[in-house]
Amino acid sequence: MAAKNALYAQSGGVTAVINASACGVLERARTHPEKIGKVFAAKDGIFGILREEFYDTSCERPQQIAALRHTPGGAFGSSRYMLPRPEKDPVVWQRLGEVFRAHDIGYVFINGGNGSMDTCQLLTRLEEVAGWPVVSIGVPKTIDNDLACTDCSPGFGSAAKYLATSIREVGLDVKAMEESTKVFILEVMGRHAGWLTLACGLAAEEPGDGPHILLVPEVAFDETRFLDKVRETVATVGHCIIAVSEGIKNADGTFYAEQQKSETYGFEQLGGAGPRIAELIRTQLKMKCHCAVADYLQRAARHLASRTDVEQAYAVGRAAVGMALGGLTGVMPGIVRISDDPYVWRVDPIPLAGVADLEKLPPREFVSADGFGITDAARTYLLPLISGEDYPPFHNGLPAFARLNYVMVEKKLPPFQVS
Amino acid sequence: MAAKNALYAQSGGVTAVINASACGVLERARTHPEKIGKVFAAKDGIFGILREEFYDTSCERPQQIAALRHTPGGAFGSSRYMLPRPEKDPVVWQRLGEVFRAHDIGYVFINGGNGSMDTCQLLTRLEEVAGWPVVSIGVPKTIDNDLACTDCSPGFGSAAKYLATSIREVGLDVKAMEESTKVFILEVMGRHAGWLTLACGLAAEEPGDGPHILLVPEVAFDETRFLDKVRETVATVGHCIIAVSEGIKNADGTFYAEQQKSETYGFEQLGGAGPRIAELIRTQLKMKCHCAVADYLQRAARHLASRTDVEQAYAVGRAAVGMALGGLTGVMPGIVRISDDPYVWRVDPIPLAGVADLEKLPPREFVSADGFGITDAARTYLLPLISGEDYPPFHNGLPAFARLNYVMVEKKLPPFQVS
Repeated sequence: MAAKNALYAQSGGVTAVINASACGVLERARTHPEKIGKVFAAKDGIFGILREEFYDTSCERPQQIAALRHTPGGAFGSSRYMLPRPEKDPVVWQRLGEVFRAHDIGYVFINGGNGSMDTCQLLTRLEEVAGWPVVSIGVPKTIDNDLACTDCSPGFGSAAKYLATSIREVGLDVKAMEESTKVFILEVMGRHAGWLTLACGLAAEEPGDGPHILLVPEVAFDETRFLDKVRETVATVGHCIIAVSEGIKNADGTFYAEQQKSETYGFEQLGGAGPRIAELIRTQLKMKCHCAVADYLQRAARHLASRTDVEQAYAVGRAAVGMALGGLTGVMPGIVRISDDPYVWRVDPIPLAGVADLEKLPPREFVSADGFGITDAARTYLLPLISGEDYPPFHNGLPAFARLNYVMVEKKLPPFQVS
Repeated sequence: MAAKNALYAQSGGVTAVINASACGVLERARTHPEKIGKVFAAKDGIFGILREEFYDTSCERPQQIAALRHTPGGAFGSSRYMLPRPEKDPVVWQRLGEVFRAHDIGYVFINGGNGSMDTCQLLTRLEEVAGWPVVSIGVPKTIDNDLACTDCSPGFGSAAKYLATSIREVGLDVKAMEESTKVFILEVMGRHAGWLTLACGLAAEEPGDGPHILLVPEVAFDETRFLDKVRETVATVGHCIIAVSEGIKNADGTFYAEQQKSETYGFEQLGGAGPRIAELIRTQLKMKCHCAVADYLQRAARHLASRTDVEQAYAVGRAAVGMALGGLTGVMPGIVRISDDPYVWRVDPIPLAGVADLEKLPPREFVSADGFGITDAARTYLLPLISGEDYPPFHNGLPAFARLNYVMVEKKLPPFQVS
């Protein structure tokens, strides 16, 4: 049997290290020409598969493939489009079959989070639905750390390291300025899971160190208790450093930051949870308050990646190819923790059925009794994930990232409209 | 004559490298016990001088003094309090005389921006006003880069490097996500001077690279022209990366995004330009838009300092002591650029009279004709300032910063209320 081609797609929000997984996939696939022909990379994720828009990665030089390991963003483009079930949208599935057949694709690697793992799992049904067999392997990725059946999600450790470092640094700044600025708030990504905000807690080492308050979606936000805690912290420490998940919720389960208008400015409250908390403190406590919203910076900050995270991202990319070559399908390389200190881990195949569309939330014992901090158990879990540095090369004062050729594969099919 | 003591104070907003200047002052002063006795560090800037609250830096171990070189924030505390003229507030000046006399202080080093240089300049009049002579030397600092008579201001290069790196990284993220997110906005500090926003322009290397639009206070904000430019950029590039100064102004000179007035200091606490621009794009162009507000993160990010900036910050600290020992007063060590490439610079004494309360704005020829970008002249000026890396040591995945003993000097005077 001639070697089949492979298709790699990035899916969902990108991270500082998703390209390290791409690097792992591409480098390993290149060493097995007897089984894997060309590796195509879908442009803009699943959209690119349906639109038959692929880059031919065989046109990329090895040095640039290697440079993906230290390049943030998603080198081939990503999207949030997820595959519908075959029963719901047979037209899409007919198209999938045509695309895979036209380009002789025998392997597909979807690099994404829990929604993408569902898409990946569905693709194992391509033979049944469209008469074209394909080996489908997931490659885990998400800064949210909410993938099930893996010790952690590649992408999380680097974002966590960046946030914990930033809040330690800014804590020293605010401490110096406490004659005027009393409160600093950092808004952290995480609509449902508070992992990243909990990781900010690692910045505190000694009593009095910030952050002093963590607000996570898992603990209902209580304005009164929160304001009391801020007042008390400012009174004892002199200032108060807060990390807040964008997705904190009221007691009734609604998002705190979706309560509309700001009376002060007359227009919609813009930023979300961070600015709203800042406004609350300014109006209720009359304290000078600064607020940073890291937004995409936290998931793009490759300049401060966790070496552990980079190694894991690369390893799951390589392992995905290894699993495909070993005859597996419908699995994802998951990270298994063998010990905390030293952190020892290995990569095992995990059936996608146990991962797809599930959400792993932080256990209650990771949050301190008052709901505002982290416990030693959380530290033990989190610390290894941010350990080690892995700086990109710098040129002229700025990080030098991969520059790809982006050679498109010639289309063989008529256009297809993705709704 | 017995060696007099020295007093060092941090003043104004702190930076990622102001402690490197402190390190320079303290290390050099320690090598001249025949002329300089103890070095006291004022707690919380000028407030500490008037309140007679000093730390005795002779109680700090050399390793911790050395660690200040890589520690962000202001190790001794800072404040925005500036000295009134002696004619306006003789009580304050009588107090100053008493404090300096009580602690036998013969040298004062004020580490700050242009307002602080005015305070420093005033202190040369202490003998005339209060009968106690003091050598007064400024140590330049400000992320805003608006100090006159120096090639640049220590603190600027590191913030600039952090911002340019962040926007290069986030540009790759948004490029990958452009199927959904069309516009990304980074709000940058800078109330009056657009230096930091211009530095973001360094991130673009090839055509199409972000940032695509820079908005600075020096160019009046014109909504229509701006929205046209965003629309055109999204149409041609696929997405649009924007850096905006917090202090951008309307054609009539008012701030585009005005926040609350600070009752304490009389100027507005800005913050809001980014979210306001995002809202404008969402409502007018109906595009999905993300916005990050770096706020204090950009001036605290010691993990990504410019090596050039760290070296200059340290050098001006050392030079300040050298100038005092050399018999100068009423001066500040300024940085003189000798060549661009390689960047060669030296430190010269600059009379404070030419610096105090002046603001150095970017020249018009640094801004491109359309007002949205930077020119080659700007690149030539800016590039050397962000060059080189100077990573702090990391321990357990996080930067390890100085831990001082903070031994207070015993008070000798009655309390004094600073209004």
